Amino acid sequence: VWRKIVPATRVAVLGTGLIGRVICEDLLDEPGFKVLAIDGQDSSLALLPDHPRLERRRADLSDQAAVARLTGEADLAVGAVPGALGRGVQRGVLAAGRPMVDISFAPENPLELHDEVAAAGLTFIVDCGLAPGLSNLLVGREASRMETVDEVMILVGGLPLRRDWPWEYRFVFSPGDVIEEYTRPCHIRVAGKEITCEPLTEIEPVEFAGVGTLEAFLTDGLRTLLHTIPAPTLREKTLRYPGHAERMRALKATGFFSTEPLALPGGTVAPRALTESLFRSAMALPAGQREISLLRVVVRGSDVAGVSREVRWDLQDTTDDRGRTSMSRTTGFPCAEAVRLVASGLWRRPGVSPPETLGAEAGPCEALLAGMERRGISLARSQED
Amino acid sequence: VWRKIVPATRVAVLGTGLIGRVICEDLLDEPGFKVLAIDGQDSSLALLPDHPRLERRRADLSDQAAVARLTGEADLAVGAVPGALGRGVQRGVLAAGRPMVDISFAPENPLELHDEVAAAGLTFIVDCGLAPGLSNLLVGREASRMETVDEVMILVGGLPLRRDWPWEYRFVFSPGDVIEEYTRPCHIRVAGKEITCEPLTEIEPVEFAGVGTLEAFLTDGLRTLLHTIPAPTLREKTLRYPGHAERMRALKATGFFSTEPLALPGGTVAPRALTESLFRSAMALPAGQREISLLRVVVRGSDVAGVSREVRWDLQDTTDDRGRTSMSRTTGFPCAEAVRLVASGLWRRPGVSPPETLGAEAGPCEALLAGMERRGISLARSQED
Repeated sequence: VWRKIVPATRVAVLGTGLIGRVICEDLLDEPGFKVLAIDGQDSSLALLPDHPRLERRRADLSDQAAVARLTGEADLAVGAVPGALGRGVQRGVLAAGRPMVDISFAPENPLELHDEVAAAGLTFIVDCGLAPGLSNLLVGREASRMETVDEVMILVGGLPLRRDWPWEYRFVFSPGDVIEEYTRPCHIRVAGKEITCEPLTEIEPVEFAGVGTLEAFLTDGLRTLLHTIPAPTLREKTLRYPGHAERMRALKATGFFSTEPLALPGGTVAPRALTESLFRSAMALPAGQREISLLRVVVRGSDVAGVSREVRWDLQDTTDDRGRTSMSRTTGFPCAEAVRLVASGLWRRPGVSPPETLGAEAGPCEALLAGMERRGISLARSQED
Repeated sequence: VWRKIVPATRVAVLGTGLIGRVICEDLLDEPGFKVLAIDGQDSSLALLPDHPRLERRRADLSDQAAVARLTGEADLAVGAVPGALGRGVQRGVLAAGRPMVDISFAPENPLELHDEVAAAGLTFIVDCGLAPGLSNLLVGREASRMETVDEVMILVGGLPLRRDWPWEYRFVFSPGDVIEEYTRPCHIRVAGKEITCEPLTEIEPVEFAGVGTLEAFLTDGLRTLLHTIPAPTLREKTLRYPGHAERMRALKATGFFSTEPLALPGGTVAPRALTESLFRSAMALPAGQREISLLRVVVRGSDVAGVSREVRWDLQDTTDDRGRTSMSRTTGFPCAEAVRLVASGLWRRPGVSPPETLGAEAGPCEALLAGMERRGISLARSQED
């Protein structure tokens, strides 16, 4: 089924939130795709454009049987659900026997499903957004061209163009997920040792052309790279305007991110729930304000002759003229391009493939990068030998 | 009644919290005083020392009739209740026909009671703590010796000696009162104009000998001075270690000090209630850790000959060997000294007298300052002509 070519492919998009919507729109731009958009909320489905090749279905995406049944009506599936539902949706698609491109970023390790997916003769491309996503692709690309990889550093962040005191930040995805980034322990590797450390640490200044000085701090985003890339040192850091991390650390140290309920007049509530609610009001991206997404991938290593090399990729993207945030573009477009790779038969490796696996293969990798350039996402490579 | 001399005086101390306790202990150090300690909480009364001249009574201090009845058993009263109960306790004491020294800092203007108290032939010394309190006394002292007063600046703060990130602050009184200081609009006078402005603003660095650089920012503490001192410019600022105000401003701007209830899973709670609870845990002064209280009063003006003069008073005090915080010492001792002034007949002016009124009279003023020195509270005056 998954070897079908574009003109006849029907794609089930499971989850039509901010990112799912961008994916639907992007797939509809391609004359051959039919889109079966599925979500639990009518309000979410209603935001999709009216289109002769779009069909809407309301379904509970936490119901694996429903996911399997609906996916069975399509040729391949896209997973774009909240992380907590991610693994269930993967299992539903597997039960339906359809290939999949996933950007749900479920907390579970996606490589665990590799054998089952391979045994079913299916291909699943997972974690295929910005970071994880393009970041993995670029690491895979450069690592495959080196004899040894010494160090990998990924810097990623979405920022408002306008800097408003005190946070100089606006949410481009759920406030709860951002607080989760600031609290979940980070898994990194340093000099060959797996280390678990606190997020919002190792704060350092970094320069970005046209943007200025930002700060970068550890967050937990390496995921599959820790399993697939044998470099002794790998780090992922999040980018913000300077000072943000220190303020967030102060909130965290005072207990505002705690999930331990507190008995107060009026009820017993978790501080994190209140903080999330205040953040939603205080840090929503105001209508009409533009934001920017930045990704920098640095891979250091050496070639067969032992010559050292440092390769740096820089990506920048801003809110587009259709009002789509750069964060939804840079997350949704890699996913939509991966759908094309699968639909066209350019990617058919059985099992679970994170983007670094695609990055190691010239054809799929260059096709995906060309797809980004075609959509106006700027990517630049520089190399120091 | 209030003209009695020390050896025969019975003092009703209304409220035996942190400050009330220090006042009781201080009065008991004087052989002539008998103390009738009154509080709504047995737990609070239980913390008082066993002493032959101390009697404990439990009573609801929000009940004016009860306050009047109990105060009637004494010769004079001390008000040391939470601000919200302050006016009611004043009225109870007035009904009992007894003189009073008050440090409850009720939100109402204490001068409003002047005519009633004077008509009853009583004297009430109000706002007689550190600031308001000693600050007013020193302003009154210097203003009374100048022909014109141009500017008054009061700087006051209680700080832990150990600076712990991120707040570098520990509570020496109720967290709710500190948040109130950071939210209640400030009433100041600048160039002859009454101005209402936001607290935590006009942040400036100031130097303190032996302490280093602190920050000072506007809070609402001038109270009676705005009515009694005809200087064109008066400001009161609170002292903290640098960076504290900026962090608090960030919390405030994000809504963490709001009293508007938020509907959350588990209940509908005011953000301020949650913040107060987290602050109580995060910023309690750990047992055995010492703190410092600082007061600086600057009065600028000129003498009859038109010669400019700037007078500066500096007070410093730290936790004592009995474990009493400098904040309770510097608030409780001025009150206890004022009780002596009233009991000894050295202060008998009918009506409501804030400390600046005492400051303008050499005898009572020097007696009160000498009482501070006697208790080891360091006060230094410097003058620039």
